[in-house]
Amino acid sequence: MTGAVRTTYRRLGVAERRAQLISAALGLFAHRAPEEVSLDDVAAAAEVSRPLVYRYFPGGKQQLYEAALRSAADDLELCFAEPQSGPLTRRLGAALDRYLGFVDEHDAGFSALLQGGSVVGTSRTGAIVDGVRRAAAAQILKHLSVPEPGPRLRMMVRTWITAVEAASLIRLDEEKQPPRDELRDWLVDHFVALLTATAASDAQAAEVARAAFAAEPADGPVGRLARRTVPLFEDAGHLLS
Amino acid sequence: MTGAVRTTYRRLGVAERRAQLISAALGLFAHRAPEEVSLDDVAAAAEVSRPLVYRYFPGGKQQLYEAALRSAADDLELCFAEPQSGPLTRRLGAALDRYLGFVDEHDAGFSALLQGGSVVGTSRTGAIVDGVRRAAAAQILKHLSVPEPGPRLRMMVRTWITAVEAASLIRLDEEKQPPRDELRDWLVDHFVALLTATAASDAQAAEVARAAFAAEPADGPVGRLARRTVPLFEDAGHLLS
Repeated sequence: MTGAVRTTYRRLGVAERRAQLISAALGLFAHRAPEEVSLDDVAAAAEVSRPLVYRYFPGGKQQLYEAALRSAADDLELCFAEPQSGPLTRRLGAALDRYLGFVDEHDAGFSALLQGGSVVGTSRTGAIVDGVRRAAAAQILKHLSVPEPGPRLRMMVRTWITAVEAASLIRLDEEKQPPRDELRDWLVDHFVALLTATAASDAQAAEVARAAFAAEPADGPVGRLARRTVPLFEDAGHLLS
Repeated sequence: MTGAVRTTYRRLGVAERRAQLISAALGLFAHRAPEEVSLDDVAAAAEVSRPLVYRYFPGGKQQLYEAALRSAADDLELCFAEPQSGPLTRRLGAALDRYLGFVDEHDAGFSALLQGGSVVGTSRTGAIVDGVRRAAAAQILKHLSVPEPGPRLRMMVRTWITAVEAASLIRLDEEKQPPRDELRDWLVDHFVALLTATAASDAQAAEVARAAFAAEPADGPVGRLARRTVPLFEDAGHLLS
């Protein structure tokens, strides 16, 4: 598989070379808006010639951008893959740690892509991003241990994923404030609150909440949230009578 | 101001004619993807000639699209303008009723725009959409009666706005299920839950929640939510001890 690559470059297999170019492109797209990255930049970063980049990506920048995006999307999807054991909030926290870490690493590229309006954004790149959202939602739904999640539970998870995304973008906009750990904890609380609220009007969500809460440690996020939420409702005494 | 318009058309002032063209365009963009709407379609819908459309919008379809979008954005922003009296959840419910009504009226156009990937989407149209989000968030913050909302409260409101948007898109995707009233109630519960969860870690949110809950009727959404949430936490007895 190596014959096609000229020996003036470090000898790399086709798959390796492709991966190297994508990785160089990702490094550039991560911190600059796509319109500010040229194929020459990619060639320079990968220490190869521009024709070599074209040989691998005859569609030019658009094709390279999509390949880089696809690769980033795969990584992003992996953030949400988490073993199905232990309290739910611990699993969510671990997934969020990875996700927020990814966002920090790909800051400008992440913003450009999700905020749209990028010159290289097309319905195809939109579909890739949407695919990540759906995959993330599917992963989270798995942790709720419902064989057939109903529409309300699915909507709940998808709106939470959107909230995670929005909060990440706001954090990048505000010079990475609040700190990652704080945002993670708030997003976990957000999930628990949303599940609790949804449980109030959806039997399936109520079942999920009951099973999940039973497995939470008293000193975990749900315990903390419960001990602070109940007094808030009790203060407005007329609401509970 | 009327001299410029030829008398072969119904006599309209410049501003009126402009508004008429925008309204015709909006009607088309509302139910078809922008790439499926031509200037001829707009001219036909407005019962004028194509050159007349060009006279008002020399930038062609892109300019007309942006004007239509700007006009829709103004309407959308108005959805969130609500008198500052009465329980918070009633105000949120009224704003959501208007917003969800707007989404239903502009279904395909609303989806195309927010899901991106439209050929007429640019950083300028992106900025218009983002402006609506910011205006909606500012309106909601006003109802929380905090003179200087801190970062957590602002993030809370902005993520909720995103959730409202995402839920509206999901509803359009799922053939307008759930019914509007049901989605409105769930989104109000969502807000209350999010405010409660944020109150657990943010003093300003706690103050807002206390004041808001005190003004809620016992048979309103917060009362209903409280009476269903507290037992859920109590069931997991170890969490409250």
